[in-house]
Amino acid sequence: MHVRGCEWVVDAHGCDPERLADVDALRTLFAHITELLDLRPVADAQWHRFPAIGHTGGGVTGVCLLAESHLTVHTYPEHGSLCLNVFCCRVRPDWDVAAALQPVVGGTGLSVRVRRIERDLASPASVALAERRGLHAR
Amino acid sequence: MHVRGCEWVVDAHGCDPERLADVDALRTLFAHITELLDLRPVADAQWHRFPAIGHTGGGVTGVCLLAESHLTVHTYPEHGSLCLNVFCCRVRPDWDVAAALQPVVGGTGLSVRVRRIERDLASPASVALAERRGLHAR
Repeated sequence: MHVRGCEWVVDAHGCDPERLADVDALRTLFAHITELLDLRPVADAQWHRFPAIGHTGGGVTGVCLLAESHLTVHTYPEHGSLCLNVFCCRVRPDWDVAAALQPVVGGTGLSVRVRRIERDLASPASVALAERRGLHAR
Repeated sequence: MHVRGCEWVVDAHGCDPERLADVDALRTLFAHITELLDLRPVADAQWHRFPAIGHTGGGVTGVCLLAESHLTVHTYPEHGSLCLNVFCCRVRPDWDVAAALQPVVGGTGLSVRVRRIERDLASPASVALAERRGLHAR
């Protein structure tokens, strides 16, 4: 048996630029995703604001370390877009990413591309060895 | 023209378990990658240690926010493995991931799987509009 994690790689367009420049809105997004997927933050999220571009609010980068790996988001208000990663080292069912984004950052024409990537945390040989040694993955 | 970023999604096996439990070694890995790819951290990296499992040191999660997006790493000493993400919103040439990992965390049988993912930061229509408005992406 491989031990696999999964990562949702999300690129979204047609978001509300004001929400994309609003750290509080993005905190809400993280809170919504962690609740939805039953994830456990192990530290406060870390945020960085980029300078405004003209009259458009600056983009934001955020990350939250989880017991199950991490969440990251990068926003581009000047393009109404964001890039989100949700990496979970435990199996979770797929979730409706657009439905999670729409009430928090959605604009009038939200479009979302979601790629789910399998992450290979441990080979079958490693799992068998760890089990013999009484160890197990997180 | 689309504005694209790229992300290297790396799963590595056959790493040295002691190095995987050593935050200083992982700091060195981040420093090496940021120098190699000419990346600019915007904050100190954030680290979280998981409890030891038996006699094996606990895994580590780390993240570094960059002007160009982020680095993350998750290590699993019990399996000799790690998962690394390097997300860069500016184009960079591919790099030799195994050569970067080997001196810092490599064990006797390092094997590395690298997937390069294009991230779609802005649609052609958005880029044209932003240019007309005198805005531009980071």
